[in-house]
Amino acid sequence: MTSLINDTFLRALSRQQTDYTPVWIMRQAGRYLPEYRQLRAEAGSFMALCTNPELACEVTLQPLKRFPLDAAILFSDILTIPDAMGLGLNFTTGEGPSFERPLRSASDIKNLPAIDPEDDLPYVMAAVKKIRLALAGEVPLIGFSGSPWTLATYMIEGSSSKTWARAKALIFEQPDVAHLLLGKLADAVTDYLNAQIRAGAQVVQIFDTWGGALPWAEYQEFSLTYMQRIIDGLIRENEGRRVPVILFSKGCGHRLGAIADSGCDAAGVDWTMRLAEARSFCGDRIALQGNMDPAILLTNPETIRRYVKQTLDDFGAGPGHVFNLGHGITPDVPPKHLACLVAAVHELSGKG
Amino acid sequence: MTSLINDTFLRALSRQQTDYTPVWIMRQAGRYLPEYRQLRAEAGSFMALCTNPELACEVTLQPLKRFPLDAAILFSDILTIPDAMGLGLNFTTGEGPSFERPLRSASDIKNLPAIDPEDDLPYVMAAVKKIRLALAGEVPLIGFSGSPWTLATYMIEGSSSKTWARAKALIFEQPDVAHLLLGKLADAVTDYLNAQIRAGAQVVQIFDTWGGALPWAEYQEFSLTYMQRIIDGLIRENEGRRVPVILFSKGCGHRLGAIADSGCDAAGVDWTMRLAEARSFCGDRIALQGNMDPAILLTNPETIRRYVKQTLDDFGAGPGHVFNLGHGITPDVPPKHLACLVAAVHELSGKG
Repeated sequence: MTSLINDTFLRALSRQQTDYTPVWIMRQAGRYLPEYRQLRAEAGSFMALCTNPELACEVTLQPLKRFPLDAAILFSDILTIPDAMGLGLNFTTGEGPSFERPLRSASDIKNLPAIDPEDDLPYVMAAVKKIRLALAGEVPLIGFSGSPWTLATYMIEGSSSKTWARAKALIFEQPDVAHLLLGKLADAVTDYLNAQIRAGAQVVQIFDTWGGALPWAEYQEFSLTYMQRIIDGLIRENEGRRVPVILFSKGCGHRLGAIADSGCDAAGVDWTMRLAEARSFCGDRIALQGNMDPAILLTNPETIRRYVKQTLDDFGAGPGHVFNLGHGITPDVPPKHLACLVAAVHELSGKG
Repeated sequence: MTSLINDTFLRALSRQQTDYTPVWIMRQAGRYLPEYRQLRAEAGSFMALCTNPELACEVTLQPLKRFPLDAAILFSDILTIPDAMGLGLNFTTGEGPSFERPLRSASDIKNLPAIDPEDDLPYVMAAVKKIRLALAGEVPLIGFSGSPWTLATYMIEGSSSKTWARAKALIFEQPDVAHLLLGKLADAVTDYLNAQIRAGAQVVQIFDTWGGALPWAEYQEFSLTYMQRIIDGLIRENEGRRVPVILFSKGCGHRLGAIADSGCDAAGVDWTMRLAEARSFCGDRIALQGNMDPAILLTNPETIRRYVKQTLDDFGAGPGHVFNLGHGITPDVPPKHLACLVAAVHELSGKG
């Protein structure tokens, strides 16, 4: 077993007792940090940072140099898989991600090539290895992927959408074609996450950002089923330790009962559901990660501290809480506000 | 009592037995209809339609001429109250609503004038009266307003927002100032809806479009409380009949237990929660309105019919279901698809 100086995060994910509540923040390596913006400007583009293992490693470590976070997360994007499949990923400032060649027909989907993540996304595995070395066992490293449904929404629409009407039309009208696509993506995500684990990721998170846009039955059939299939195919032990899986379907607090049955170790919860209620849905079968409203980081230290306390109190006693926001940190947050959050989580949850 | 030819909608809202499931559609008078687009082009702007009682009446009736809907809804906008308070409402094509003078400080909020809806929004009451006359008792007329929290989000941000960070900062940092604003808005909405009822609205709906963006405790304190206060102040009987109140907090399916305690007669449900589950939250204390995914209307007649059946089956036996979408109909829906939906609801629920 590789030695790990701070394993609080891993212990909380396995619902073991911890001395305090561990904390990391979605998008902790990102635009709210001036040192990130500088490196991003020098690199020329977001993808130039992602595809350069040296720079991806540096960006991953930036927040850890400022704040005593309990985990690092690989700096990358959820859309690397469709990019490797040939869709041509672009990022336009202010517009978000888009694909040059979105999926427009059943034959586009049939012709979608399988990928070998080791060969087709070597820059990701190289970054994971570099980050693990640089971390030197300080805290665990999280790898991640988008969920099949979330990848499919972008691949079909070609860009972000308010309603995901094309992607939904596919599942409503041509469920067989949708299942073909989601099956291919589930295979790719499984291989991709396993490659990250082999390269050194100690935890993996599946981001199902748009699961909450689906009706209940379709969420089950077209999103959760494929995440279960991925979890079933993942390497669950590596370096002598369990590799926990975190599943985050945003806007799906009321679906946590089914999520807890997926085989995941932990579920992300957004801020719209009180953690105590989320726990009651899961019956404490899994750990929970969340769930402060990211907008609270735009207020002031006193307010941030008050809401950290409320979030800890909402989870209540017992193991299995990983503190996080209910969604990614926004670019307009002053870094000192995040310092205040991390300090408050540690202090109020009993870190000596 | 004014005679009403088709009172199925009113009966369903009171959880009385009906011969079939009544149906109306949020935004049924709107851009998906070519005759609406023509009138809108002739009028020059959206607000020109809203503020002209003659045109507002014509637009309200357009969908009823095409489809055997079980209710009419006043054609207006949720932002008429802040406009009457002096914020200066504009609609830019593709950009949505915006205010010339958004609320930027506590003193802006303190100085916000009270309004008298009869004097300050006379065009709304004139439209209600005209529509009632034109309907000649065919189906009931729904009046409506935005909820205090939803109005506040637009008034503080100045326009639509993805995160409502300014509006949330106010409730997180200056709850007293937020309560002052929400109290003023609750008074205005109460007077506004009562004026609509006196003018002839037979049902009222409160649209809490952004209630779902709030954390649980804040939803309760800053949105639901004020809707309860409005409901407590409403005229509940007029023309010898009960005036039912429908409360629609989008994205709040898991909060339906609390919503059912607000004093409303019915709650709107979006498509992310199965109606059977929604019923279990409410314990059948109130009627439910919803909840098909609007994206299904972009598919084809066969698929639409299948999902109509699923929605009816999800609600199950017993009274208290009003069929609707889970959100407004989108501008790209072919009108014949809505015809298909309305026919399927009526036929599959037993209309002779």
